[in-house]
Amino acid sequence: MYRSHNCGELRMAHIGQKVTLSGWVQKARDLGGLTFLDLRDRYGITQAVFNMDENAELCLEARKLGREFVVQVDGIVRERSSKNASRPTGDIEIEVSALKVLNQAKTPPFTIEDDTDGGDDLRMKYRYLDLRRTPLQNNILFRSKLALETRKYLNESQFVEIETPFLIKSTPEGARDFVVPSRLNPGEFYALPQSPQTFKQILMVAGLDRYFQIVKCFRDEDLRADRQPEFTQIDCEMAFVHIEDILNTFEGLAKHLFQTMIGKDLGDFPRMTYDEALSKYGSDKPDLRFDMSFVELNDVAKGKGFGVFDSAELVVGICAKGIAESYSNKDLKDLTEWVQRPQIGAKGLVYVKYQKDGIKSTVGKFYSDDELNDWGKLFGAEEGDILFILSGDAEKTRKQLSELRLELGRKLGLMKAGDFKPLWVINFPLLEWDEEAGRFHAMHHPFTSPKIEDIPRMLNGDHETMKSLRADAYDLVINGSEIGGGSIRIHDRELQSKNFDLLGFSKEEAEAQFGFLLGAFEFGAPPHGGIAFGFDRLCAVMNGQSSIRDFIAFPKNNMGRDMMIDAPSDIHDVQMKELNLKSTYTKGN
Amino acid sequence: MYRSHNCGELRMAHIGQKVTLSGWVQKARDLGGLTFLDLRDRYGITQAVFNMDENAELCLEARKLGREFVVQVDGIVRERSSKNASRPTGDIEIEVSALKVLNQAKTPPFTIEDDTDGGDDLRMKYRYLDLRRTPLQNNILFRSKLALETRKYLNESQFVEIETPFLIKSTPEGARDFVVPSRLNPGEFYALPQSPQTFKQILMVAGLDRYFQIVKCFRDEDLRADRQPEFTQIDCEMAFVHIEDILNTFEGLAKHLFQTMIGKDLGDFPRMTYDEALSKYGSDKPDLRFDMSFVELNDVAKGKGFGVFDSAELVVGICAKGIAESYSNKDLKDLTEWVQRPQIGAKGLVYVKYQKDGIKSTVGKFYSDDELNDWGKLFGAEEGDILFILSGDAEKTRKQLSELRLELGRKLGLMKAGDFKPLWVINFPLLEWDEEAGRFHAMHHPFTSPKIEDIPRMLNGDHETMKSLRADAYDLVINGSEIGGGSIRIHDRELQSKNFDLLGFSKEEAEAQFGFLLGAFEFGAPPHGGIAFGFDRLCAVMNGQSSIRDFIAFPKNNMGRDMMIDAPSDIHDVQMKELNLKSTYTKGN
Repeated sequence: MYRSHNCGELRMAHIGQKVTLSGWVQKARDLGGLTFLDLRDRYGITQAVFNMDENAELCLEARKLGREFVVQVDGIVRERSSKNASRPTGDIEIEVSALKVLNQAKTPPFTIEDDTDGGDDLRMKYRYLDLRRTPLQNNILFRSKLALETRKYLNESQFVEIETPFLIKSTPEGARDFVVPSRLNPGEFYALPQSPQTFKQILMVAGLDRYFQIVKCFRDEDLRADRQPEFTQIDCEMAFVHIEDILNTFEGLAKHLFQTMIGKDLGDFPRMTYDEALSKYGSDKPDLRFDMSFVELNDVAKGKGFGVFDSAELVVGICAKGIAESYSNKDLKDLTEWVQRPQIGAKGLVYVKYQKDGIKSTVGKFYSDDELNDWGKLFGAEEGDILFILSGDAEKTRKQLSELRLELGRKLGLMKAGDFKPLWVINFPLLEWDEEAGRFHAMHHPFTSPKIEDIPRMLNGDHETMKSLRADAYDLVINGSEIGGGSIRIHDRELQSKNFDLLGFSKEEAEAQFGFLLGAFEFGAPPHGGIAFGFDRLCAVMNGQSSIRDFIAFPKNNMGRDMMIDAPSDIHDVQMKELNLKSTYTKGN
Repeated sequence: MYRSHNCGELRMAHIGQKVTLSGWVQKARDLGGLTFLDLRDRYGITQAVFNMDENAELCLEARKLGREFVVQVDGIVRERSSKNASRPTGDIEIEVSALKVLNQAKTPPFTIEDDTDGGDDLRMKYRYLDLRRTPLQNNILFRSKLALETRKYLNESQFVEIETPFLIKSTPEGARDFVVPSRLNPGEFYALPQSPQTFKQILMVAGLDRYFQIVKCFRDEDLRADRQPEFTQIDCEMAFVHIEDILNTFEGLAKHLFQTMIGKDLGDFPRMTYDEALSKYGSDKPDLRFDMSFVELNDVAKGKGFGVFDSAELVVGICAKGIAESYSNKDLKDLTEWVQRPQIGAKGLVYVKYQKDGIKSTVGKFYSDDELNDWGKLFGAEEGDILFILSGDAEKTRKQLSELRLELGRKLGLMKAGDFKPLWVINFPLLEWDEEAGRFHAMHHPFTSPKIEDIPRMLNGDHETMKSLRADAYDLVINGSEIGGGSIRIHDRELQSKNFDLLGFSKEEAEAQFGFLLGAFEFGAPPHGGIAFGFDRLCAVMNGQSSIRDFIAFPKNNMGRDMMIDAPSDIHDVQMKELNLKSTYTKGN
């Protein structure tokens, strides 16, 4: 037996008991005739004591132990003379009678402490050491508990967890597939699923009624920061539902998870249309922890001789409360430079400061104080506030102002840790016109249903009409992060074919890729819809963290590499031959 | 709202309520002025009634509905005049006031009944129809519940579910990998995991202490019947454990699952060494629902002039109870032919019948009745029993007799449905000598620890010694199916290197493939071990079924094809180009 207890469970009640503990040497200290060892495992840290007077041999052995050695100690639990209130085991210690080194350890390349000195690459390579740190262990434990709570809740709501296949069919629509050559079917490939979308719809046609799965999905994209080629979804689908049923069901799930996991009552989730979100916040995933909503100034700002505004499609601003006196010219200059960076791309930044000693503005010579006061009224601005105004092409300007709003939110401390503001964004457009490709893309995916009242316009409308079609699609946004998204699906073969037409599929392409689904729609497909949550992101957002990487046990870097196992890698020629494949890549190219 | 209730929940207590149901038309019957509709969903079947006298228009509409149409009905719940006791909803029916066809259905290619007339290929192609059948829906619901129960139990035992990556590194040891070309790392490949083996060991080195995962695994093997290229494991690992800890922990899990899911108390699991299993049952996964264990007859059967036995390495038999009178010469001839089939490969079958009117045997002229009576005593045979005896090469003969034992078990009804006999098989050999390849293979896998007392012999022994090394490896067998298997792992770098040496890895190969694990062993790796259960198989065994396919929502056929979506398939040239790949396969070759 390696242990009678773990390193986190001994208390005053155990005093006098003979126990055996195993764990890692977190720290060793020699104080005169005593040696103290902090023994660590997943459950906590317990102090072990060796006494030079009582057992010199044992104590000398203990003094040879290095950090991260794995040891087993036998001993008696006794009360500590100087207690450590910051540790649950801090009232006791083990008076060691026997010590066994279970394994040695080289000196770790970085410290195994809450704050580590390891760089990203080093931490990824020695992930097994990084994962020994308490913050990462807590993340992994949180994730495990969140998955279990999700499963319990959905199970109690009569959802069935059903595993869908990983070796499926490549479909060029959407992101790029990872593919898997088939040896038994030479020349052919499987694809790894970008999501179980068509399978969950098939399960509805099969009458399974309520499906969910916590499942890995795969996208071969050029990796931006905080994207992973494999990621995890809570994937859900329901039959015989309208949009209300879905929003209520999954609002229930989200509320339950926040309440159970972190004790937060989210209240009822507000809803906002896509159009409203864009015009009020310039984003389809606004962070509602603070308001600072957009006010459009075209009516009051144009035609007064200020050429920049006059020639702009849109003049729009936000109001920052109470910073007029404290925000220096230097601050304003920095902010202007910030919006002018290529990542944001604004030409300039107009401000109007409402100060005790009057109004100050970059556009003071074009507008009277009365006019600027009227602007302020549109924002509800008071003395002490500053308006920030951008102008130009409507779509671009809204995006820029959205970025500025978030930057101000960060700078002014308006995104408070522990504050969670959920929002349903609804009524997304059905189609997106891709000017470059000269074709429509599905805004959500090709299986999304138009809103029922838009179906006649979809079946008979002209090209311009198609741009205005609304979908029964929705996103769940929390604190500006898209946590989940879904839609009511098409369940009618004709309507699905029409949608494929609009998306530029030929009949043959539609049949080759999605014939099974079109076929299934002919054998009694019920109305259905669903949603998928980004599980990695949900973990991060619930913990107030911005990076998903520390919630994934073995993440990949920005080149899709696993730095620890060093994958991907070469494979043997015999494997290539068995797969009937040849590489056209020459190293050094 | 598509429904106020599902098709399985209405009872006498609902009588008089106005309800809305949606579902599939299971059956329609016209009886005089009435039309009865059986409306089906996942939850059950409810009868809806249309009355020609009261609403002719509605009734005529109902008469147009075909099987598997999806409909919504509004109506009042009322008591049935002729109740159907075999259905939970059989006391009531719906008097329909409104009917809406939600979707039509073509005539299904096979009947959606408990027993279907669909062949395998048709059922795979129209899986969404096959999955509408109650037995398949029950299988899928069982699987979902079994997964949840497993998770709850392991979670309560402080196991953490941790997702390990799917895009990992190809390692030629073991079965063939499915590989995934990397676009971002040209010329390189990921592999899909055959199991998360090294990752779960890394998690132990990381101090996560108790890991589990219900996880898909992949093997590109030539598919035998009832093998799937992707399959599901309950994968587990524990740190600071000896073999006892693991057997007790997972015996607890298995007992809990059988008790909770099907109300079976498995009792304490017996244990048997690998050697004993082979000598008593000719198999490392004996079905213990019946005994019929082997008795070796070399001492009594050889040297009496019967050349076949005299020249055999092993003479061994089993005793079938109570069939001597009923088993005809024809039966014996059939059985002899059965063991002579190439799949079994025995040369012949010797029997000894202990009948009321004396002993009858195929070897009666070589052995006296006294001698044959002495044989019988070795088996505990009584009047009415038959001995079946095979001889030849020891290993082959044991295998053949094992097959015969199972065949007799089947024929004589000794494998009773609802009877579950678990067994731990322990002390597997560490290495297997592959005569053809001229090298050792790992019997379990290269990370399995030899038994601690065998380590000195492993480090210093000669070639013959290596064949006799025992591993700390174990299998859980239930009713002759291997449900799970695992081992205590090596956690010492030197011992692991030695094992790689024995398995024929060069230092460079070991480093390239498993360097990360060898490295991890240098930074404080704890003693650890684990187990993995075949989840698909467990589902089938618990339900007394032999095929795993009907417990998988979307299985593949023996060529690894998904018949429904028609995968694998061609991919676009542009995909091949992006992946720097060229196919060397020409169709028609």
